[in-house]
Amino acid sequence: MDIFDRLKAARAADWTSYVDHDFVRQLGAGTLPEAAFRTYLVQDYLFLIQFARAYALATYKSRLLDDMRAAQAGLAAILNEMELHVRLCARWGLSPAEIEAAPEHQATVAYTRFVLDCGAAGDLLDLHVALAPCVIGYAEIGRNLAPKGAGALGDHPYRDWIGEYAGEIYQDIAIKARRHLDDLAARAMTERRFVELAALFGQASRLEADFWQMGLASAETRLPLR
Amino acid sequence: MDIFDRLKAARAADWTSYVDHDFVRQLGAGTLPEAAFRTYLVQDYLFLIQFARAYALATYKSRLLDDMRAAQAGLAAILNEMELHVRLCARWGLSPAEIEAAPEHQATVAYTRFVLDCGAAGDLLDLHVALAPCVIGYAEIGRNLAPKGAGALGDHPYRDWIGEYAGEIYQDIAIKARRHLDDLAARAMTERRFVELAALFGQASRLEADFWQMGLASAETRLPLR
Amino acid sequence: MDIFDRLKAARAADWTSYVDHDFVRQLGAGTLPEAAFRTYLVQDYLFLIQFARAYALATYKSRLLDDMRAAQAGLAAILNEMELHVRLCARWGLSPAEIEAAPEHQATVAYTRFVLDCGAAGDLLDLHVALAPCVIGYAEIGRNLAPKGAGALGDHPYRDWIGEYAGEIYQDIAIKARRHLDDLAARAMTERRFVELAALFGQASRLEADFWQMGLASAETRLPLR
Amino acid sequence: MDIFDRLKAARAADWTSYVDHDFVRQLGAGTLPEAAFRTYLVQDYLFLIQFARAYALATYKSRLLDDMRAAQAGLAAILNEMELHVRLCARWGLSPAEIEAAPEHQATVAYTRFVLDCGAAGDLLDLHVALAPCVIGYAEIGRNLAPKGAGALGDHPYRDWIGEYAGEIYQDIAIKARRHLDDLAARAMTERRFVELAALFGQASRLEADFWQMGLASAETRLPLR
Repeated sequence: MDIFDRLKAARAADWTSYVDHDFVRQLGAGTLPEAAFRTYLVQDYLFLIQFARAYALATYKSRLLDDMRAAQAGLAAILNEMELHVRLCARWGLSPAEIEAAPEHQATVAYTRFVLDCGAAGDLLDLHVALAPCVIGYAEIGRNLAPKGAGALGDHPYRDWIGEYAGEIYQDIAIKARRHLDDLAARAMTERRFVELAALFGQASRLEADFWQMGLASAETRLPLR
Repeated sequence: MDIFDRLKAARAADWTSYVDHDFVRQLGAGTLPEAAFRTYLVQDYLFLIQFARAYALATYKSRLLDDMRAAQAGLAAILNEMELHVRLCARWGLSPAEIEAAPEHQATVAYTRFVLDCGAAGDLLDLHVALAPCVIGYAEIGRNLAPKGAGALGDHPYRDWIGEYAGEIYQDIAIKARRHLDDLAARAMTERRFVELAALFGQASRLEADFWQMGLASAETRLPLR
Repeated sequence: MDIFDRLKAARAADWTSYVDHDFVRQLGAGTLPEAAFRTYLVQDYLFLIQFARAYALATYKSRLLDDMRAAQAGLAAILNEMELHVRLCARWGLSPAEIEAAPEHQATVAYTRFVLDCGAAGDLLDLHVALAPCVIGYAEIGRNLAPKGAGALGDHPYRDWIGEYAGEIYQDIAIKARRHLDDLAARAMTERRFVELAALFGQASRLEADFWQMGLASAETRLPLR
Repeated sequence: MDIFDRLKAARAADWTSYVDHDFVRQLGAGTLPEAAFRTYLVQDYLFLIQFARAYALATYKSRLLDDMRAAQAGLAAILNEMELHVRLCARWGLSPAEIEAAPEHQATVAYTRFVLDCGAAGDLLDLHVALAPCVIGYAEIGRNLAPKGAGALGDHPYRDWIGEYAGEIYQDIAIKARRHLDDLAARAMTERRFVELAALFGQASRLEADFWQMGLASAETRLPLR
């Protein structure tokens, strides 16, 4: 049982509220309203900006050159991913101008600033535990939604998104992130600290669940407006 | 027109959504459901912990000894205020154990970590602009709800709360905070920067409005459960 | 053997270079040139400003309210101590204006910013280990220089200074700091991390030794100028 | 007159103490003792590690995506430069193991942690002003030492080093850094703040001068050991 599995087991209800959220289920079933997905996509772009800052923070907080190089690679990857994200948005009719002009939703602020604050107030292990629901959780969600691979998704409306996270490249990123978490824990985790880390992990998972909820809620609140 | 009035004018809609929020109106009218107020009280306690951290951050970021002493006094005041808060909670039947065991709501996380991140990423002026809706806004709300002073409130159910913020001591704190903002702006604010600060002020005001909304929503969602 | 004694044992040479430095010996023997002591006093004032910032950083980084209160008390104590320091300087003919106009010496910058960076990049344990040579070391030096108490110092020229750190109040501060270090270590220290903390402790001790050296060197370099 | 020239003019003596330091003159004349240069090279490697952290901090503190990308490119460049640096060291008979095992000198700690603390406590403009003596100053030194280009240096013993900083690639980096400083100042610099920034620039320049001095001093103190 690696540290990530221990964290999940310690906060099983929080974890399930996130990875089994209705947004995820509807996404998997292809029944998620387009409005919900588009709200999510826009906010996820704003999320990635803060996420890049979190990797910059990890680089700044690194004491070993290897940790620094790894964090910098993560940062560069996110900045690249944002260009891909712009293309994904374009396919859903969202222009870059529209995305960047969007105000950050409370749910976006809550999770991103929570992660950044965990990192600013704590150490590298705190930061990476707070990032884990996102970095490693998306791989679990991708695999759950496409257990036979993205190829089997046919003309699923959210095929691109699911395919990205179910795909080998992203799965590999998540495997490395789990190993990195184990390394950090081997260096700096006591059993007393595990309790604190699990609390932090649970809170991050709930904030991720709230992020999905924001997507669903936007679809509901938009209906009466039309 | 001091810097605070300029910020309010630049973000009038955001500001109004906060100081004229239904929660505030119902609080003033004495019709606010107790459940809403109690949810607010508990979250406000958790809020104060992060708020104290924000003043500690301001102390750390100070270059001048006078700024440092002022921020430290603010920090000490908040840590004292928390003891008063515990007493206020007790009057509403909330024990310290109950308060501290409460999980932070998304709205609490969003506003507090937003403020802390503004301070960590920016300078003292950014930090104090992000704090202003809270520090200075509560004085405006208190005065609005008790224009003739707390003495005229009779047996208003929320008399204690309104009295605290309408009272001279708190009004004076807000006046000093406005002056401090002017000092910081005189040192470090360009007109180009004002645009950024106004955006930050608007976002902080919306997050404060969301904080009231959390209180109201808790009363609504609790009803069917009973 | 508490964590502080373990750190000292692991970095015995670094520790000795600091607590047995010629500056300390000459201070104890009463033979330290006045110029050296005055340079030290001025830089120590500038040091305390950064030291206060370090306690503010500790407050900001605290997760538990008790840690926060303790760090805030430390911060308030330092800000008070600075007023005492101004009086001590006055006795040596140094005016507040003279002190505040003095440029920070390299040795002052090196140790203070090292401590602040340990705290910003690491966690509370890193920060307090980096502070330990100063907080706890001064108590050891005071006790070494006045083993029979300050009362036995007679008309020793540095009686005030030695008395302050040999005295019960400061000895008690150091005892509490040691216990706090043990608490933090019990929460967050693994054996692998001890190695990193010892390296950090050694570096901080050497930077403290350099701080004494700055005092001595200033007396030497001043001579030919006269 | 751009902001960099204004800073230099405001702190002319500090600036000259750095760019005209004896270490630089002897380096240019080819008379610098090898021991001094080697000490410098080793400490400069340790310096670059902290320097990379400073660019990571700049990335973390960026509000605009363009600032973030620029800082990330700077960070990636430094991490690459470190590999070049290892090769340069090898030419002087210094193995990577020897470099990494070297303890950081007080002068290295002082300048690097000062820069990092300016960035942590202040904003992006503070951070880049503190970095300027290094980033932009090295281009000025390179040009001064090789006014006719590195090609005219013949078999100068420090040809590689001078050529790197006199060369077009590095000169271009410095030009961009000056423009970036102007951009940041146009956003966030008032005249009152210029005074603070100039103080910070002066202190950084003196700490750079101390860094050269460390190199020279090491050659002197080593002599009796041989």
